[in-house]
Amino acid sequence: MTATVLRLDPSDKPTLDPMISLVATDMNLVNNVILDRMQSEIPLIPELAGHLIAGGGKRLRPMLTLASARLLDYSGTRHHKLAAAVEFIHTATLLHDDVVDGSDLRRGKRTANLIWGNSASVLVGDFLFSRSFELMVEDGSLKALRILSNASAVIAEGEVNQLTAVRRIETSEERYLEIIGAKTAALFAAACRIGAVVAERSEADEAALDAYGRNLGIAFQLVDDAIDYTSDAGTMGKDAGDDFREGKMTLPVILAYARGDEEARKFWKDAVEGRRDSDDDLAEAITRMRETRAVDDTLARARHYGQRAMDSISGFPASAAKDAMIEAVEFAVARAF
Amino acid sequence: MTATVLRLDPSDKPTLDPMISLVATDMNLVNNVILDRMQSEIPLIPELAGHLIAGGGKRLRPMLTLASARLLDYSGTRHHKLAAAVEFIHTATLLHDDVVDGSDLRRGKRTANLIWGNSASVLVGDFLFSRSFELMVEDGSLKALRILSNASAVIAEGEVNQLTAVRRIETSEERYLEIIGAKTAALFAAACRIGAVVAERSEADEAALDAYGRNLGIAFQLVDDAIDYTSDAGTMGKDAGDDFREGKMTLPVILAYARGDEEARKFWKDAVEGRRDSDDDLAEAITRMRETRAVDDTLARARHYGQRAMDSISGFPASAAKDAMIEAVEFAVARAF
Repeated sequence: MTATVLRLDPSDKPTLDPMISLVATDMNLVNNVILDRMQSEIPLIPELAGHLIAGGGKRLRPMLTLASARLLDYSGTRHHKLAAAVEFIHTATLLHDDVVDGSDLRRGKRTANLIWGNSASVLVGDFLFSRSFELMVEDGSLKALRILSNASAVIAEGEVNQLTAVRRIETSEERYLEIIGAKTAALFAAACRIGAVVAERSEADEAALDAYGRNLGIAFQLVDDAIDYTSDAGTMGKDAGDDFREGKMTLPVILAYARGDEEARKFWKDAVEGRRDSDDDLAEAITRMRETRAVDDTLARARHYGQRAMDSISGFPASAAKDAMIEAVEFAVARAF
Repeated sequence: MTATVLRLDPSDKPTLDPMISLVATDMNLVNNVILDRMQSEIPLIPELAGHLIAGGGKRLRPMLTLASARLLDYSGTRHHKLAAAVEFIHTATLLHDDVVDGSDLRRGKRTANLIWGNSASVLVGDFLFSRSFELMVEDGSLKALRILSNASAVIAEGEVNQLTAVRRIETSEERYLEIIGAKTAALFAAACRIGAVVAERSEADEAALDAYGRNLGIAFQLVDDAIDYTSDAGTMGKDAGDDFREGKMTLPVILAYARGDEEARKFWKDAVEGRRDSDDDLAEAITRMRETRAVDDTLARARHYGQRAMDSISGFPASAAKDAMIEAVEFAVARAF
């Protein structure tokens, strides 16, 4: 369905494996911090937090902190606490997101809000968020604190921005990029920038890693959006059509709507406003996307941001870390194929 | 209804006025920070935050930061941002609290969650919480950051602890004190301690102000709990019987239950578990509290903590600030009379 060049040998596909291997030892130590610091005397806290934290996430954001530090030859241990802080911010955001979206499933598991209720999810999110700041304070870098408190505020702004765009067909590509830039890419950017902070590198190196993370984050999100309208989505841990049935404004919809004729526009407006959410409607949506190349061009946009991510670290000397970070981008944009 | 000595001249009653006058100039500057930093390009954020922030709260916590700094002769301006940070944490907590409790009214006004929905309240709370850390980072004191991030984690733990005690008649006085110590008193303590931090005083002075705030916070909460079972509660901005109708475990209920006979215990169990919430049931509850002196003794407990608050600052030299802080405690414990 998408204009892809199929690779003959699936083992040629880019993967996250090089990055996972690169940071494996550090990641074990980060995991120890995460498990240690999600504890509390109130049993519900580790129980609920553990459900999500142990629930099969890729821990991509802390991995990016570790890989970025490695790219800059950092050999200390400060980044373990900071990477855990990044993951706690992410986890808190997911808990609150699922309450906001009323989600039942995440990564194929029942959501915490479904099991323990919205109140518990809100409050345990608050706890993890506070804990993330405690971890940063223990590290003691005001720069890291500034980067992550700013990212957190930007994420919350992005979430509110998205809330006010819910089921609004007139959402523009510009506005959508603004939303995912805040909601998704800000934490990717901060996670990578932290790597340069612990390595005590120049502002230019910080900015390069920030750009890498930000562009990678946007690429990841756009590919996620595209996957929702491709049929082999099941393998990605996300059900095809979830976004469609929830009337979510994502780039494929924005492009299909912008490029459609009057009748197509009526279809998309009805879908986004919740009047078309059957399996037949989804099939029709996918057909309309094929006709307008909306998914292909969402993926083309993703490749554009992926390219920018790779270029932003081109100035660093060749290393295993650099190779792994480049392959992570290739993996991000190739997932839909 | 309570064993009070009525003052003949109401003007003799202790008030917050001395503290309000003491910090008026500083508080104007704090208010400027608050109004400035709740802004965002996303209009819903200042709209929703402003509803609560402009909604007639006493700003007691930032006032305590300012008064504590004044007690220690601090004459700088650092505490303005930190006091605003304290108020943002408090506001974020209230927004999330109202979602958790499903509240419709706060301070006599419709709650933000009722007007804009739970999702917006959760996310704007997250935004204010992030902003509070941005303000602390701008101040640059790791000590202040440590104190307030720790307080935030403790508050969230207290909220979860309370959630798991909801409608459970077997909640003990010890457990209840643990909950309000975390939920309410931790931020009072931190707000006061921050005053000593900006004044760069000794750990002993910090601890004294921490104890003042913590005990004052507990006293405040206990009196709030008592007010819910007194008939003139309307004047306090809270409707009598709210806690009762919600089946909230507060100290008056804990004492009435502990001291009651089998029939009384059945009544309280039914009430807390939601099977008795009519006006007649409330009248019966108030009678039962009178018989067991549950409200009087809740107030006696409050006076105990109030006394400890006053004693904890007895070592500081006499000053207008000290007088105001002592009268604030007297006000806190006298409110129910």
